[in-house]
Amino acid sequence: MSGLYLLNCWYLAAWAGELAPGAHLRRTLLDQPVLLMRSDAGKVAAIGDVCPHRFASLSEGKFESGIVECPYHGLRFDMDGRCVHNPHGDGKIPERARVRSYTVAERHGAIWFWPGDPDIANPSDIPNFSFLDGPSVGTGGYLLTKANYQLMCDNIMDLSHADFLHRTTLGTEGDIARASAKAQMEGDVVTIKWAFDGKGMVMNRLPDDPIDVHTEFEVTWHAPGAMILRSSSYPIGVEGEQGHIVGGHKRVSAHIMTPESEYRTHYFFNTTDAGRVERIGKVFELEDGAMLEEVQCNMRTEKFWDLAPLILSSDRGAVMARRALERRIRREQETIAPSNSIAAADHAE
Amino acid sequence: MSGLYLLNCWYLAAWAGELAPGAHLRRTLLDQPVLLMRSDAGKVAAIGDVCPHRFASLSEGKFESGIVECPYHGLRFDMDGRCVHNPHGDGKIPERARVRSYTVAERHGAIWFWPGDPDIANPSDIPNFSFLDGPSVGTGGYLLTKANYQLMCDNIMDLSHADFLHRTTLGTEGDIARASAKAQMEGDVVTIKWAFDGKGMVMNRLPDDPIDVHTEFEVTWHAPGAMILRSSSYPIGVEGEQGHIVGGHKRVSAHIMTPESEYRTHYFFNTTDAGRVERIGKVFELEDGAMLEEVQCNMRTEKFWDLAPLILSSDRGAVMARRALERRIRREQETIAPSNSIAAADHAE
Amino acid sequence: MSGLYLLNCWYLAAWAGELAPGAHLRRTLLDQPVLLMRSDAGKVAAIGDVCPHRFASLSEGKFESGIVECPYHGLRFDMDGRCVHNPHGDGKIPERARVRSYTVAERHGAIWFWPGDPDIANPSDIPNFSFLDGPSVGTGGYLLTKANYQLMCDNIMDLSHADFLHRTTLGTEGDIARASAKAQMEGDVVTIKWAFDGKGMVMNRLPDDPIDVHTEFEVTWHAPGAMILRSSSYPIGVEGEQGHIVGGHKRVSAHIMTPESEYRTHYFFNTTDAGRVERIGKVFELEDGAMLEEVQCNMRTEKFWDLAPLILSSDRGAVMARRALERRIRREQETIAPSNSIAAADHAE
Repeated sequence: MSGLYLLNCWYLAAWAGELAPGAHLRRTLLDQPVLLMRSDAGKVAAIGDVCPHRFASLSEGKFESGIVECPYHGLRFDMDGRCVHNPHGDGKIPERARVRSYTVAERHGAIWFWPGDPDIANPSDIPNFSFLDGPSVGTGGYLLTKANYQLMCDNIMDLSHADFLHRTTLGTEGDIARASAKAQMEGDVVTIKWAFDGKGMVMNRLPDDPIDVHTEFEVTWHAPGAMILRSSSYPIGVEGEQGHIVGGHKRVSAHIMTPESEYRTHYFFNTTDAGRVERIGKVFELEDGAMLEEVQCNMRTEKFWDLAPLILSSDRGAVMARRALERRIRREQETIAPSNSIAAADHAE
Repeated sequence: MSGLYLLNCWYLAAWAGELAPGAHLRRTLLDQPVLLMRSDAGKVAAIGDVCPHRFASLSEGKFESGIVECPYHGLRFDMDGRCVHNPHGDGKIPERARVRSYTVAERHGAIWFWPGDPDIANPSDIPNFSFLDGPSVGTGGYLLTKANYQLMCDNIMDLSHADFLHRTTLGTEGDIARASAKAQMEGDVVTIKWAFDGKGMVMNRLPDDPIDVHTEFEVTWHAPGAMILRSSSYPIGVEGEQGHIVGGHKRVSAHIMTPESEYRTHYFFNTTDAGRVERIGKVFELEDGAMLEEVQCNMRTEKFWDLAPLILSSDRGAVMARRALERRIRREQETIAPSNSIAAADHAE
Repeated sequence: MSGLYLLNCWYLAAWAGELAPGAHLRRTLLDQPVLLMRSDAGKVAAIGDVCPHRFASLSEGKFESGIVECPYHGLRFDMDGRCVHNPHGDGKIPERARVRSYTVAERHGAIWFWPGDPDIANPSDIPNFSFLDGPSVGTGGYLLTKANYQLMCDNIMDLSHADFLHRTTLGTEGDIARASAKAQMEGDVVTIKWAFDGKGMVMNRLPDDPIDVHTEFEVTWHAPGAMILRSSSYPIGVEGEQGHIVGGHKRVSAHIMTPESEYRTHYFFNTTDAGRVERIGKVFELEDGAMLEEVQCNMRTEKFWDLAPLILSSDRGAVMARRALERRIRREQETIAPSNSIAAADHAE
């Protein structure tokens, strides 16, 4: 993993709904093939998805009663990665027959994955996405995009792009861009806010709608790429909570980026308004996804800062988040020496 | 660009007809994404096709009245690469908000591109392709081939290949190969000539045609890959200019190679005989193109000379052109240190 | 070839039936494009498939009366790689106009290729596949698999995988895995044997077949990847040769791996029972091939031993074969310095 990723951190691995009881699923996270499993009783676990014997993908094997069988030579592993059956010769289980186990936690409708030191993994550090626990929340959306996950975060952290990239779908005729966004950092959490009056977002407007609205956006970023976007809009003059009821709206959405590899990102999104998830996904796929893949192509394999990007006022939040993440990765790299093995057993044992 | 390409030189970027008034077009030239634009009034310009802010492709944005708008965050640039509009916050235009501008010139039905030092770019150094200015000349042909541009030049500089690769389409039953070609260099311009009697080229012949013809070919090469091919053929015994009228013909064609990257070449071709362009393109695509892509595969990423090629008498012109180009690149590299940035703004400013 | 391959060794290049009299065929062997040819009289030869002039593939040219013509500029070469015709200028044949000739031999229905020092090539070192000379033997099967050839050998050297990977096609409900295999090495030849009683292989069984059988497997490996698999099965209690007749069977099959490149393998297979070749090929393609390509993906470009594989008792034969091959490659590398040229002419001459 060579210093690219923050390891002691929670990453979203899958939406809870992607993994039914008794199901298993391969997902490559931070360059590592990971096998996600859910027992019949509902418990979730994750181990490396490469058999330590002959490097087959365990995900291609049977998973029954919490035991996965390697499809190539039949070694069986439990949900902690311990070998529980060796069908060969005298059946003795070699001490090294283990698959690396990863710390996971299920919270807010999602399965979270901790690639770093298990001893310091604390589920209470998972960012608060409790708004996804509500009854009106449906299954989250998922897209795999061929662009670096930090570019994907930058995209959400600078909503001004909606006025151009989403001109006909989500934009505001330049109001977001013109509004001077306020960004601030508390600890390692970055928040950026926009507030402006105008016609509001295209999608909320009726043709020739004469009413101007007050719109606010707030994005909160948690390392490495978990973002909460709050938006509200109400007719100007109608203030306070009541305004949100009479002719206004208030929405919260989750935008969470997990690196598959340096140039590919798992994008998980969801919102309190279940009916809108599919639409967000479509816009993202056709507009943001296409844009970010093009940007990644133009950047080739160069690092972001090495290309000396021009920084605008609208980049404040994105740059703060990048700096916060870089700081944490640097700090972490100074204290740990990550292992390299794909077989994922702890060979040092 | 790391010493691969000659920079202070005119390269064909596009046929004039590829860029209508008000149109813009992305083309990767010498590893650099370039945005070609033509104003409503017909003026042509070229700038880097990567926004210095977030590396979006400007070519994906709107181009109106000589202004291109970045499709991602709405920065606007004029045809010289100057930022003329920043829609963010207070709208102040940062000093570094510039895209690299490239020197271009329109001449002989083509748009020529100068990747090097603009101060020494002189359109009168564009090779004389004035035969393409005539009224009978149609739109030029274009093919993208997955082979190095010097291999593509070698192919035209050694027409003997027609007798084998184009046996059933353009060849002469071995007459070109047998004719000892005369190659010479004047300054950096290489000329190679063939003259022979025989049945002539397959495509000019009727079945069982009893008449033998005298055929001459002359290819003139200008760095880095602009070639003029003159061919004439007339019944033996009928000499001089008159011969070209009674039963003979005289043709001139352009074959111009511009590197997209080390292993991909833009091939531009045209001829004084508009009706023949499509046919030349077909033969090139099916025969030369397929051959050169196979040759490039066989060479992998090795350099031509490192593979110790066997040089035949027919290679004289091609080798002279290679040597002339290598000399110029070497000379140029000794005096300049090329920049590396894809954002293409001049960061040293 | 950089030390990857054993050079002084016979590799299977093609089944004899793949090359009819007068035919020629390109096959990349050990990273080298090779042109296999069979004269009208039936003699087989192999030369490099890259013209030393302009690196065209000779296999794309005409092959007539034992002479191949380069499709690009018409040089002609005989089956020993000597240039016999230069159609250019005065027609003199340059001394360096030669293509590397490879030593080949035809034996046991196959064409064998010796990439190393021709002076020590001895066809009597070709492993004894004489069981393929019988009249009931048909054309062998061939598959190209995107996995390293040693992984492909390991697969055959550990038949226990049949109980899992081929559970519904070839397996034995765990009997092969449970049977302690005996492996031994004699010289550089490795043999591994299994013997067990049980229901036998799925494919030989009728539903609810009450009869238990005694089954034996023996795989013999010759460097670098030529394996003979002998299997027999007969009802328990009926012993000796007679048993093989009454209700039993005895089969021999060939499984021969030749590297195309480090991550791609030519797999040649055949058996004494012509009717079964197609079926073996189908099972291999759908089950072993898919598995080994997945394993190679999981290993990325890492070396096998660098991944610290867990070794089981069933790996004994495979590990012995790997060690024997590594020893021979190491020994060979200490005494020779391989050439690097793709043009394949002996430039040192």
